[in-house]
Amino acid sequence: MLTSANIPDNHPRAKSLLERERLVEGFRKGLVVPEGLIAYGRGEAFDYIIGGRTEGFAQKAIRAAAAALLMAKKPVISVNGNVAALLPEKVVELAKTVGAAIEVNLFYRTAERESAIAEVLKESGAAEVLGVGKNASARIPELMSERRKVDPRGILVADVVFVPLEDGDRTEALRKMGKTVIALDLNPMSRTSIAASITIVDNVVRAIPLLVEEAKKLRHSGNLRNIVDFDNEKNLQEAMIHVARRLENV
Amino acid sequence: MLTSANIPDNHPRAKSLLERERLVEGFRKGLVVPEGLIAYGRGEAFDYIIGGRTEGFAQKAIRAAAAALLMAKKPVISVNGNVAALLPEKVVELAKTVGAAIEVNLFYRTAERESAIAEVLKESGAAEVLGVGKNASARIPELMSERRKVDPRGILVADVVFVPLEDGDRTEALRKMGKTVIALDLNPMSRTSIAASITIVDNVVRAIPLLVEEAKKLRHSGNLRNIVDFDNEKNLQEAMIHVARRLENV
Repeated sequence: MLTSANIPDNHPRAKSLLERERLVEGFRKGLVVPEGLIAYGRGEAFDYIIGGRTEGFAQKAIRAAAAALLMAKKPVISVNGNVAALLPEKVVELAKTVGAAIEVNLFYRTAERESAIAEVLKESGAAEVLGVGKNASARIPELMSERRKVDPRGILVADVVFVPLEDGDRTEALRKMGKTVIALDLNPMSRTSIAASITIVDNVVRAIPLLVEEAKKLRHSGNLRNIVDFDNEKNLQEAMIHVARRLENV
Repeated sequence: MLTSANIPDNHPRAKSLLERERLVEGFRKGLVVPEGLIAYGRGEAFDYIIGGRTEGFAQKAIRAAAAALLMAKKPVISVNGNVAALLPEKVVELAKTVGAAIEVNLFYRTAERESAIAEVLKESGAAEVLGVGKNASARIPELMSERRKVDPRGILVADVVFVPLEDGDRTEALRKMGKTVIALDLNPMSRTSIAASITIVDNVVRAIPLLVEEAKKLRHSGNLRNIVDFDNEKNLQEAMIHVARRLENV
């Protein structure tokens, strides 16, 4: 079986291999689909290229995201299988810190997965999880995938939506609905990254805990509006330059 | 379920999503492990960065690899779960064209996977598959993972080993044993890429069919020795420059 016992201690990627086990465990519990494992692998590659650290451009975006979530009237955190498998406690902590609702939203939606994900979030302290079963009764216009199914009390009426590990289609559709979209994507060139209002180019495992810390720091700040004033295009360019430099100097 | 029926036709990544299904199907059949899906995702990211095409540096390496396999006394093609799931027929065709043995070699080795992979290869026309069960009785020195288990009639005594989708450890260990190692890796900066004798920086799905074609063309050539004379370091630098430029110009 695929436990840490099989990974030789002297393997240079031992840490990364151990980290993956959480996701594979989430897969065994029915939270994660095979496509989610593939998507995680894509993220690993981009994280490797970025350098495996939270860079300045990510820190700036995290600060703007924390302020946007704190200022929002109806903020919602959209959770998929990978996020639920990797760090459910931090998602719940973020929701509590900024006063956001949590909603399940899946590209490959089944009743079993929805329930498994909602259960993990509740075990991690969530009082309520939106978007499960019949509650995902509203539809996002112009979106064809299962991602279009949303909760009329959640994403449908949200002013700010945080979408870690997202696909580009939905980000674009949510933006067309006039919402502020905060994306978390390791690829600064993805459609998601380009379409979002605030894009955090970082690993979800590093960025969400930092977002919680930043929200706690800013919670009582009187200056949120200035912090939210954020040039996403300029910040993404910084991320792209960083990536190009990393590759030149390897 | 995760069939093409779920993927909207207008999804911009429909082609890539459909290609993935072959791997997910291999996963359902027990050929591929969850970690193999993650590894495939890493490959997708690098393929996206490379541009999704076989570039000149890859074509040069494919030509050198074809010549090296044709000149070898005992060439062996090492097959893992992902390769068996993605293109078993092409692996068998390559083996027949260059007169190579086929050997199963797995990082996560179980008797069931070995047998499932050997069976797929035999269904695809392989007369014999080495490295299964008790036949993987020899050990590669200095290697701690399950990858060290090899067939005494195959990789142990091979002069040229083709290792598509490999980890760096084994490439280094095989090189220390004095073998010519041909790697296929989308990351030109990986340890595998750097340690190999000939590194093909390309997608396995594009490169193996091209390798078959090249081997057929060169089969009766009298000039193989000159073609094998190949500067891997220089070729990898070309690949890295290509990747850096791609990122600068996005």
